[in-house]
Amino acid sequence: MTRDIAELVALLTLEEKAGLCSGASFWTTKAIERLGIPSILLTDGPHGVRKQTGDADHMGLNESVPSTCFPSAVGMASSWNRDLVRRVGEALGKESQAEVVSILLGPGVNIKRSPLCGRNFEYFSEDPYLTGELAAEHIAGVQSQGVGTSIKHFAANNQEHRRTTSDSIVDERTLREIYLTGFEIAVKKSQPWTVMAAYNRLNGTYCSENETLLTRILKEEWGHEGIVLSDWGAVNDAAASVAAGMELEMPSSNGAGQRKIIAAVESGELSEEALNRAVERLLRINFKADDNRKPDVTYDKDVHHQLAREVARESMVLLKNEDGMLPLQKSGKIAVIGAMAEQVRYQGGGSSHINPTRLDNIREEMEVAAGEEAEIRFAKGYHLDRDDDDDTLVEEAKSIASGADVAVLFVGLPDRYESESYDRRNLDMPANQVHLIERVASVQPNVVVVLSNGAPIVMPWLPQAKSVLEAYLGGQAAGGAIADILFGITNPSGKLAETFPLSLKQNPSHPFFPGEGDKVEYREGIFVGYRYYETKDITPLFPFGHGLSYTTFTYSDLRLDQSRITDQETLHAYVKVKNTGGRFGQEIVQFYVRAVSSNVLRPEKELKGFMKVALEPGEEKVVSVTLDKRSFAYYNVELKDWHVETGEYEVLVGASSRDILLRDTISVQSTVHLVPIFHMNTTIGEIMANPKTLPIMQSMQLVPPENPSQSDAVNAKMMAAIIRDMPLRALLSNSRGKITEESLTILINRLNEAIYGGDGK
Amino acid sequence: MTRDIAELVALLTLEEKAGLCSGASFWTTKAIERLGIPSILLTDGPHGVRKQTGDADHMGLNESVPSTCFPSAVGMASSWNRDLVRRVGEALGKESQAEVVSILLGPGVNIKRSPLCGRNFEYFSEDPYLTGELAAEHIAGVQSQGVGTSIKHFAANNQEHRRTTSDSIVDERTLREIYLTGFEIAVKKSQPWTVMAAYNRLNGTYCSENETLLTRILKEEWGHEGIVLSDWGAVNDAAASVAAGMELEMPSSNGAGQRKIIAAVESGELSEEALNRAVERLLRINFKADDNRKPDVTYDKDVHHQLAREVARESMVLLKNEDGMLPLQKSGKIAVIGAMAEQVRYQGGGSSHINPTRLDNIREEMEVAAGEEAEIRFAKGYHLDRDDDDDTLVEEAKSIASGADVAVLFVGLPDRYESESYDRRNLDMPANQVHLIERVASVQPNVVVVLSNGAPIVMPWLPQAKSVLEAYLGGQAAGGAIADILFGITNPSGKLAETFPLSLKQNPSHPFFPGEGDKVEYREGIFVGYRYYETKDITPLFPFGHGLSYTTFTYSDLRLDQSRITDQETLHAYVKVKNTGGRFGQEIVQFYVRAVSSNVLRPEKELKGFMKVALEPGEEKVVSVTLDKRSFAYYNVELKDWHVETGEYEVLVGASSRDILLRDTISVQSTVHLVPIFHMNTTIGEIMANPKTLPIMQSMQLVPPENPSQSDAVNAKMMAAIIRDMPLRALLSNSRGKITEESLTILINRLNEAIYGGDGK
Repeated sequence: MTRDIAELVALLTLEEKAGLCSGASFWTTKAIERLGIPSILLTDGPHGVRKQTGDADHMGLNESVPSTCFPSAVGMASSWNRDLVRRVGEALGKESQAEVVSILLGPGVNIKRSPLCGRNFEYFSEDPYLTGELAAEHIAGVQSQGVGTSIKHFAANNQEHRRTTSDSIVDERTLREIYLTGFEIAVKKSQPWTVMAAYNRLNGTYCSENETLLTRILKEEWGHEGIVLSDWGAVNDAAASVAAGMELEMPSSNGAGQRKIIAAVESGELSEEALNRAVERLLRINFKADDNRKPDVTYDKDVHHQLAREVARESMVLLKNEDGMLPLQKSGKIAVIGAMAEQVRYQGGGSSHINPTRLDNIREEMEVAAGEEAEIRFAKGYHLDRDDDDDTLVEEAKSIASGADVAVLFVGLPDRYESESYDRRNLDMPANQVHLIERVASVQPNVVVVLSNGAPIVMPWLPQAKSVLEAYLGGQAAGGAIADILFGITNPSGKLAETFPLSLKQNPSHPFFPGEGDKVEYREGIFVGYRYYETKDITPLFPFGHGLSYTTFTYSDLRLDQSRITDQETLHAYVKVKNTGGRFGQEIVQFYVRAVSSNVLRPEKELKGFMKVALEPGEEKVVSVTLDKRSFAYYNVELKDWHVETGEYEVLVGASSRDILLRDTISVQSTVHLVPIFHMNTTIGEIMANPKTLPIMQSMQLVPPENPSQSDAVNAKMMAAIIRDMPLRALLSNSRGKITEESLTILINRLNEAIYGGDGK
Repeated sequence: MTRDIAELVALLTLEEKAGLCSGASFWTTKAIERLGIPSILLTDGPHGVRKQTGDADHMGLNESVPSTCFPSAVGMASSWNRDLVRRVGEALGKESQAEVVSILLGPGVNIKRSPLCGRNFEYFSEDPYLTGELAAEHIAGVQSQGVGTSIKHFAANNQEHRRTTSDSIVDERTLREIYLTGFEIAVKKSQPWTVMAAYNRLNGTYCSENETLLTRILKEEWGHEGIVLSDWGAVNDAAASVAAGMELEMPSSNGAGQRKIIAAVESGELSEEALNRAVERLLRINFKADDNRKPDVTYDKDVHHQLAREVARESMVLLKNEDGMLPLQKSGKIAVIGAMAEQVRYQGGGSSHINPTRLDNIREEMEVAAGEEAEIRFAKGYHLDRDDDDDTLVEEAKSIASGADVAVLFVGLPDRYESESYDRRNLDMPANQVHLIERVASVQPNVVVVLSNGAPIVMPWLPQAKSVLEAYLGGQAAGGAIADILFGITNPSGKLAETFPLSLKQNPSHPFFPGEGDKVEYREGIFVGYRYYETKDITPLFPFGHGLSYTTFTYSDLRLDQSRITDQETLHAYVKVKNTGGRFGQEIVQFYVRAVSSNVLRPEKELKGFMKVALEPGEEKVVSVTLDKRSFAYYNVELKDWHVETGEYEVLVGASSRDILLRDTISVQSTVHLVPIFHMNTTIGEIMANPKTLPIMQSMQLVPPENPSQSDAVNAKMMAAIIRDMPLRALLSNSRGKITEESLTILINRLNEAIYGGDGK
């Protein structure tokens, strides 16, 4: 349906326009009936539809109608499976339509700067490329059903600690390369209907009133066509928000925002044109949502539960598997231990919390998967709601473990350990769970640990466990998926989308996370996650991209289709991957790029492509990715653009960020010429290094300082360094009067002319 | 002699005044005979007098008259011996007087940010307190002889790479706590006659024209009474330098500086008053130097050589000593291997290079020290001027090693590896030396390695060496001192004044050192040296403060004379140290302070006191230090002052930064009240935490958001965090209209009044 939105805006009063810029309630926008402007319903997401019934409490956190709870983003990301994430999006879109929800808030694409961030389970990865690729699929999936998304939290909202007032201090290159790239990929590929402005400040200005972020970058540079809405309660000054490019304050501020905007327009602080532009964008989304309503959509809860199980299977990561301990035999005695096997932790706390349509019972699923010939016994082992040991429970656990062939321990982080709104203080599991593992291991050598947690933990007990399955927060079908993997019904295929450090202190943001007072400095810059561990050569507990399988894969024949490209061309990289084991399996093939040399700081390697490939035993396939300018570029803050330095780059193919199996080199030629500007502090070395200016320097017959007598104070390297680093201005005092300020100015002009051309501009 | 300097300045023409602000030649200042203004001579230092004869070449680096070459600063610092450093200063002062030198340039107090800095051997330490304490002694020693010093390089000149144009980007707290503290201690304690402005820029402005540095901090805040002179050739704009508080450009700029200053005064850019102030300060130093000339001073070269040997003995650090391999027996067969045993590296290259009065021959010294009953054989092992193996030399070395009882290998960094003017690229020794160690160790289990180098190296060969003596650059008596230590004539007593990392990548400044182009960001902030390793819990190769002895010491009875002080009071800490071994020895007792908790980032521990104590076998002494405000303070950038947070602090006593043996707690009460200022973004948590504002908040009867129904989306911790972090502005939209902007403004005023007092200021 086409409408003349501008005409509609012209019919609105100032009060109406200002009013439209805030929600009508906790979850709805305002309708204006006389003009047919509809109200639309937004609800929390992103891995399920959290539609509240009845009156929303004013935290927006009470009970919601049942919907399918898919694995949290941390698990979704560990699947590295674009199609699967898109199918989840489609399912979420359908459920939203069924619940009359127009915009499902999410996905969350903030980068995992620190494993402590309480909300990490809702975010994809420490890598912006992986984040952006998966977010784009999620958005495309949901929006294919006529339901909008809200990519969040824009931007640099990487902690919960003081999130409503803290100021993230991030240099521009880091912001572009690490913290914005995920948003950029998703916005450009999938045009989310809305973008959610984060609670925090960015470099001094609240994100919700940050014009650079919301207008310059998002709207103008990336071409975002939708609207920006605030995180719930994030607005600091409603008029400043509209001026900066934010269209919708959520939830209702009970008239406060409206009054502020009216006053600002009346005082001239805010132009009515800016308000009109905001309302136009807003109405376009409102009508789009309304036009896309599909009143008769229903969905099959069983089918979606099956999808949740499929996703959960792919989202779990087999971290360790000594002696082929997994998969378990479907026979013998199996001790299942841990309160988390009774009450699995399958999702995190806060706005993403879902009231699931069903919930798998791990013990039951284990019984089913194990079949008739296995004997499964259970012991609780510990209390979930406390950290101290209960010796009776431990003894019971030891007793059934010692009598079994294998002990499977279900442990992890309880709800109180991680949640929206607060960060963890350490990476520890509850002490009683750690003790349980140690004490069970003292009587049973075959220990399998299944972890339910939303973010990395440290594992001092790792040597005592033969196998470790990271099940993350696997959604309502986590139980079935875990059983499928443990008994080999499914071959695990997830890989870590984040680094597990050996200790908190290893993390790049330590000790600068979570900052002092309201200020948090991102001092590690671009060296986040594996970019740091690889560059600093620190061995983590488990590296980014790591994950085991029950089968084995070999990589061969890496081929680049060109040996030399310009930054305007694309490169195709091909590699053969073969399943050399005895089972069907999926392998996540990772492509990293490394600058062989650079004038700027570059991480040791960066993920620039990946593909998940399914292979029958003995089967071989060619996996390929396309690399382009962005794959080789860094963000040049002077150019204010992405820039590829002319030079050699390595394409690395690996099974993880540390396990690089093949590499080849490509030469990339920049089509942008960075023009040096010569001045009094240009060094002799810089002039000599440039073939255009070297002859001028030589023709000046500038005698470099004479070789000082054979004093052993000076070696040849020192002499060369002194000359190389000498600024032009030094010629004034070093030439014994031969060179004056005038003649130096003439020289500098000649140098610049040689670069810029004859007109000397 | 008293003079009316102001009157004298009034008699000078503008040309004369402008002229005085530059040197007359490479090493002298200008005289003005008609007014009796003397010219004075400056020469390079700081560990010897480098007076050039004849015409100075215009690098100032040719041959100089013989003088005593003391150990480089890195070794001097490793002595941790204040008296000894002062005695070296006195000797240097005497030699300067004998050579008609008025100002001996040095000491160098730049902090060792990276082990790569080519000039680290000239600097004391990675710790500002140790640096400042020793620099103060050096200055006091030299100046006690009527000779001035020039503390250098002011400031943040922590690399050689592009030193004349690079811009050190350092945040204010880091600058104060790490990079300025050494200067501050020395200036306040010992008033160096001159301070040398560094080549580089600091936060965008050349140090030589940095008013904050030269005037605000140095002159006004620290009360420096002398002058600032430029590093040789460091001046970018002579007029800007005078305006900023630099008095003397060195060397002569052949009139360029003078012309610039005259033009600036004539154009009004530079006030003549500023120039007058500069010339007044300059003349005061010139006359002071002249008045302190002692024409008849001579010195005894043998006595100074003996002092050089005494210092060298204390400056060497026994890093490893397995099986009590050292001291060597004065009998049996000893293989002495390595080109460095023929041609010891005893000083570094560049401006500190000395033409020594004598030079110990290590082989001869070894023969003497070993006595008649030992048989010493020598093999060269490798070529000093190349990195590749010479198999003939290696075989020869293996041959004498295999037939000996012990092999002593002399290795380290050749001159070409480290020098003023360029930084190292890695921490490696030459490959041929590493191979030599490995190959000798394959035939001889008793390997002793003696290192001659100016800065840390990595030691992949460490497991193959039973003992390692870090001899650093030990000055002209290095040979004798090494022999003394190897044969136990002297018991080693040095400890590292810098961390030896396991790998370059461990270093805190990696990968940000040496920067991109002309910009180097000090992103690690205050976490330099052991402050980083301790805070990040990284185990280095050898920690700061580490050093072994041939005897053993025990520490006991740490006693603090108070349990609670204010930041205006001092604390005395006492500890008993006992020599529990069989030899006389000296122990360096280190006192660190640790903030138990803090609202700002603090290093895990910081050195705040040390004492070197000499003990006969069985002897016990009480060692004490005094701690004051500064020992507990951090630099508060908002207060623009040092500030002690009220709270608990631990006093740690140790034999190294890692080897903490005793600890006790002191409570320190601040006498400064940091007044919080309340505003719309103050959080509820901040108000509730303050006993003065809590009652106001309570009296408002602000109902925190009702407990949302028993949804499991929210746990108690999450609820508490939401309320704690909620900014006041949120009440506007959350109170359902009960709180308006007006009533919120009234509340904020009341909160501020409660803190500031009734007048509400």
